[in-house]
This record gives sequence, structure tokens and C-alpha cells, in this order.
Amino acid sequence: MLDGLVTGAELDTRLERVRQAMREAELDALIVADPANIFYLSGYNAWSFYTPQILFVPLTGTPILAMREMDALGAHRTAIRYADDVLGYPERLVHRPDTHPMVWVAQVLRERGYATPGRVGFEGDAHFFAVRSYLALRDGAPEWTLVESRELVNWVRLVKSDFEIGEMRRAGRVASEAMRCAVELIEDGRPLNELAAGVMAAQARGVPEDEGGESVDGDYPAIVPMFLYGDGADTPHLTWTAERFVRGEAMSIELAGAHHRYHAPLARTVSLGAPSRDLDRLAGATVEGLNAALAELKPGNTPADVTAAWDAVLARYDLEKKSRLGYSIGIGFPPDWGERTVSIRADDTTVLQENMTFHVIAGMWMTGYGFEVSESVRVAPGGADVLTDAPRTLIIKETP
Amino acid sequence: MLDGLVTGAELDTRLERVRQAMREAELDALIVADPANIFYLSGYNAWSFYTPQILFVPLTGTPILAMREMDALGAHRTAIRYADDVLGYPERLVHRPDTHPMVWVAQVLRERGYATPGRVGFEGDAHFFAVRSYLALRDGAPEWTLVESRELVNWVRLVKSDFEIGEMRRAGRVASEAMRCAVELIEDGRPLNELAAGVMAAQARGVPEDEGGESVDGDYPAIVPMFLYGDGADTPHLTWTAERFVRGEAMSIELAGAHHRYHAPLARTVSLGAPSRDLDRLAGATVEGLNAALAELKPGNTPADVTAAWDAVLARYDLEKKSRLGYSIGIGFPPDWGERTVSIRADDTTVLQENMTFHVIAGMWMTGYGFEVSESVRVAPGGADVLTDAPRTLIIKETP
Repeated sequence: MLDGLVTGAELDTRLERVRQAMREAELDALIVADPANIFYLSGYNAWSFYTPQILFVPLTGTPILAMREMDALGAHRTAIRYADDVLGYPERLVHRPDTHPMVWVAQVLRERGYATPGRVGFEGDAHFFAVRSYLALRDGAPEWTLVESRELVNWVRLVKSDFEIGEMRRAGRVASEAMRCAVELIEDGRPLNELAAGVMAAQARGVPEDEGGESVDGDYPAIVPMFLYGDGADTPHLTWTAERFVRGEAMSIELAGAHHRYHAPLARTVSLGAPSRDLDRLAGATVEGLNAALAELKPGNTPADVTAAWDAVLARYDLEKKSRLGYSIGIGFPPDWGERTVSIRADDTTVLQENMTFHVIAGMWMTGYGFEVSESVRVAPGGADVLTDAPRTLIIKETP
Repeated sequence: MLDGLVTGAELDTRLERVRQAMREAELDALIVADPANIFYLSGYNAWSFYTPQILFVPLTGTPILAMREMDALGAHRTAIRYADDVLGYPERLVHRPDTHPMVWVAQVLRERGYATPGRVGFEGDAHFFAVRSYLALRDGAPEWTLVESRELVNWVRLVKSDFEIGEMRRAGRVASEAMRCAVELIEDGRPLNELAAGVMAAQARGVPEDEGGESVDGDYPAIVPMFLYGDGADTPHLTWTAERFVRGEAMSIELAGAHHRYHAPLARTVSLGAPSRDLDRLAGATVEGLNAALAELKPGNTPADVTAAWDAVLARYDLEKKSRLGYSIGIGFPPDWGERTVSIRADDTTVLQENMTFHVIAGMWMTGYGFEVSESVRVAPGGADVLTDAPRTLIIKETP
């Protein structure tokens, strides 16, 4: 299937790979809380992750979804697996100081016979597995030895299936279209929040039907568009203000295209009018470094190899980058489109395989100015297979 | 100050109120991780909460921000307090299986003399205080007795200052404008993702200048627009698909206006063409119930009183609602615009005070259809002071 929903068969394959990893880690069960991991295994997709929810994966038998009753009743609308028997905790347990939904979940798992001695993994760095959830399960099932899963499911997600690569390519098309809109909208005097309005609309709209008759609808990205503008051009992760873009300034734009929760992020820097000599020089070095890095992104190499190629170029320009050059991508839910596994940096020795996917982001934040350029890519035999389509340069836009 | 940034003096007052609550809870220090709480106390505002960050608040002395070095260097761009000496943990600690940023933070706090015996509060239900953060601090500062804070800062946020009420009113204007755009855009055959595009653009754009010369720029809402459409009209928290809106169907829309991180959510249900008799009847009962609830939202009453007024109306129509009727609102960061303190339900006995603010949401999800209507309100002597402006009815839109 080239577009549309993932098949149940693919979900079953994913579960088997997760269980294989569980056997290697000697886990009898796994508590999955990261919404991207729950989506990966079940297809479940709703903005319900602000109240506690888990997918409980025993080594054998059917995994069990547990979430707020209000959400459990509708889980079958998106979940392709495990929606027949969702544990819905009562509404009265939501946001209470004196008890917690996971107290109830632990009790029901006990009634179903799962509170037996064994090693049970939990996602210790997931955003939506709160300390109170952890403590409630620890106290509610003292038979369990709770073990940090070390992103077990995230690591299984690392190499993408053909279906997933198709989804990532479509996300890349949405990203390219959103960046094209952003560049088009930049003009002297336009407030940044109006620019954000145009970019977010483009992200949701997606790509209109092309000559081949294919269109791509946009999903919501895990992060809003980020604009590094003016004095703040040296500060990543700022969102927008109502400040007005003025001629002579430059801005780095970081955005993603999303399609069915798969993400392709993309960063570019736009100068409205002629850039400063410093920015022009920085842009040239950074793009050259990125090109060198992308060429090394092939099976058998490591992130350390990729980083070395980048560092060698930068060193020739007396530049260095302290932060990582990229990270693994795929499914994303707020607040992050990264997979939290492989980082492109000198001390990561993961051996790259075909169909791993990365956001390679060359972000250089100097004092008072900065330059960002990035690509979402697939690891391929000839080096990076780029999923997006935007000029890989400092984009200079002249006002009329 | 009517618009613009909060003053340092107001932040200092907030800190003093938090410390008073700490003294009452016998806490010697508090680890604040909820981005809304960090913003409330410091003004710090960036999309950096996907890596660990805290505000460490000792009972005396200057609170300490700790975050990723990349973000720490730019903290002064938004933080009005505590930006002079931000602890920036090294990039190499980001997303690693073998160590964790909070190991480093605990060590630095120790070097600064804070690892002394005492009761230290942590936010056990915050989304961005992961179990690994908790365990790293527990092991790194064994002198501390870690104590669940039970949303201490969130409770301090409950009654809004005049400045905050002004921000909430402006957020309400953005919400009203976004809902007006949503209703305008609904037409036969329009895909839901294109509707989302229009709504998100309106949310970011905000309100154009009015006759009085005031405009309101839109910030990003903590939750994307949610559309309960067609078969999914009985399921809250679904986001959009590329399905097309067709004549004869109805949809509930839940969105928020945001301004400087303050939120005013708003829900309405729109029927394209004549509604079914079931929906029309449900809408009438629900609006009557909401009106009765809003009249009771005044100082001295409790959420239980408000809920009783709502229940009495519903009972006359043989209807009931199992989930809560609303919750406290104010500052919001993804994934939630609620404050996680007071809920409007029968077992909440908090005594309402003037300038508490709530999202009162009458969501009735039946089988195969549903109706939502909500208001963002301020508790006032005469009952709810409504911050938004949209017709409080089932909105019936005729196609041409």
C-alpha cells in the first residue's frame, strides 16, 4: 500500500520485532507510554496524551491499551489493533491530588493476572510517563521489577519499512511546500505571527494535486514553526512574536511537513536584501559542510564518520559546532519530532543501515547572527537520499 | 500595563506566593518542570521543553534555571528573571542511554551547596519531568527527601492578577475570531485539513486592528484544532483527516485563542444544513444546562454547586454527563491548556473566588453524534464573565 493507513500485518511485524528486543533485554512485559510508540504499534492517534495512557505489552498474549474512559470509547476510530478491549479509567480519576489513574490501571492488570514476578520495562525518558504513573505502578504491582527500557521501541523504529519511507517522502513534499510558502511570504514589514499563519496553513493544507494526480494532505507537526530572527537569530527554539520583518535582516526558519504523523523537518535561512559578509561567509562554509556530511550518510558508516566529514570542512573555515549535527526521525508527536535514539555526533558509533532516516541540521548560532540549513534524508548506498526539495543555499530575497 | 510583557515586579510577587505555599507545605526547595510554571515565575518561553529543564526554587536566594546549553545561552531573550546565571548542561548529555542531563544538574546544585538535608518538592504529574529526571535527582542528592508537590505552583496560578485577566481577554478575542473563521470556512466538500489550515492561520494571525486601534497577535495554542465530525462526532480529542465535510453532517469544533501563552478555549457545533431532530434536541438541552451552570459560577459557590445546576437541567431531559464540566485555565504549553487543579464536577469543593478562570465545556458525546458548546470565563460576582464572543447555540449553516 503506497498511501493510506498502515496495514494490520505491518503492525503485527512491528510487535514481533519489539518482542524480540524484549526477549534480548530479558523483559517479561513492557509499559509503552510515548504516543509515537503507541501509534507505531497500534495505530492509535488522538490528542489524548495529556492524561495518562499506556500500551501494556506482555511477552505473549494481546497487548492492552489503557486510557481515560472518554478516549477509550473512541479508540477504535484510529487504533487498528488492540481496540476491542481498551481499559478506560473512570473520569473521576482525572487530575486529582489524592489518587491517580495508574493506581486503577495497576489494579485492573492485577485482576487480569499480570501482577506476577518478572522484569517489566518502562519508558523512563518518555514525556508522557509521569513520575506519579511510575510510582503508582511500582506500588500497585510490587511483584514487578521495574526496568528502564532505554527507548526499546524507539530503537525498533530506527530502520523504516517501505511503507514508512513512502510516508516520509510525502511528509517531505509537505515540508518543501511549506518552506516555499514561507519564503514567498517574507516581505518588508510583515509581522512574524502573520508569517507563522501562512506557514501553519501550508503545513495543514499539504500539497495540492500535481500533474500525476497525487496530492498529500498535511497533518499537524510535532513542533510549531520556529523563527530565529534579528537579535534572536543566535537562539534556537524561539517561537514567533509580533515583531515585523524588516529589509536588511535575515531569519532562520525551522519547520516540518507531517503526513499521518510521519515528519520531515526542514530548515533554511532567508535574507531580505543583501546579507552581511559574516552571514554570507558562514552560509558558504555551512552548506559545504552539510554537503560533505550528506555524502557520508551511507550504510556501514557511523554518525562519527559523518561528523568527521562535517568537522573537516568547518575546521578549514575556523569554525566549530558544539551541538549534534542531527538525529533520527520518523513518527512524531508534540513536543518532538526526533526519535531519541541515534544522534549525529562524534561519540555515536551506531552502524548506519539503509532506510534509517535522519534530520541533518547544520545550525550555526554565532553571537547576534546565525545560519541554519537542514535536510531530511534516508540512508542510501550512494549517500543521503534527500526527502525534501528546497535550494540548499542562503536564500536571498530582494524586495521590489 | 495593559498589554505587553509581564513586569518583573509581578514575577516577584508570584515567587513570594509560591514560597508562602512552600512554607505551608514545609518544603525547603521546589523543582519546577512544567513549562507553564517556569513561564509563570520567570517569563522564560521557548520550545525547549522536549529536553529536560527545571527551575530550582530554594526557599531563600535566587531561583536557578537549568537547561540544555544551547537554550541556556539564549534564555535572556525571554526570561525576565533568573537569566543571568543559567546552568547549561553540555550537549553531549542530550538523548543518551548511559547518562542523563539531570545527573549533571544534581552535581552542579551539590557544588553550589544545595544538596543538604531537607524536603524538596517535585512535580510528579508534570509532562516534562521524566522518571529518569526524578531518579537522577534522587540518586544525585540522597540528602534530599523528595516530596510530591501536588501541583503547588499550579494552585498558586489559580486566581489571576489584573494583568493576567487582560491577557485572557485578549486570548478570548483571538478565540472568537478563529471560531468565526472556522464557521465561515465550512462548506460542502471542503476537506477537514483545509479547514484546519484556515483555523490555525486565524489563531496565529489573531485579531486585526479594531475601531479603537487595538489589535491582538496570536500565539500558538497548546492543542491543535480538534474536529469531531461524522461518525467520529462521538469521540473527543480526534484531530483532523483529509475527509470532506458534506452537507447534512454536523461537526463540533474545539479550539483556543492564545496570546502571550494565555489561553481561552472555545467549542461550538456547526450543522451544514438542517440538523437531525436528535441533535437539535441535544443542543437545546445542553445550552440550557450550560447557561444554568454559568449563572452559578460566582465567588463563594463551589464546582459542586455549578455541577448541580447543570445536572438539574440535564435530568429534565433524561440526559447525564459522566465527565467533568470544565477545568481551570490560564497559561498553557503543549499538550494541555488546562491548569490541572480545579475541575468542575460534583466532588470538587474548592470555594470559587473572583478572577479564577475556567473553560466550562458542555461536551455531550452520544452514539454516532455529539454536541459541544463551551465558554472561557472569569468568576465574577454576578456569575460567569464570558471572555469569548460567539453565538451560544447550535450554529446552522445553510449551503447556497
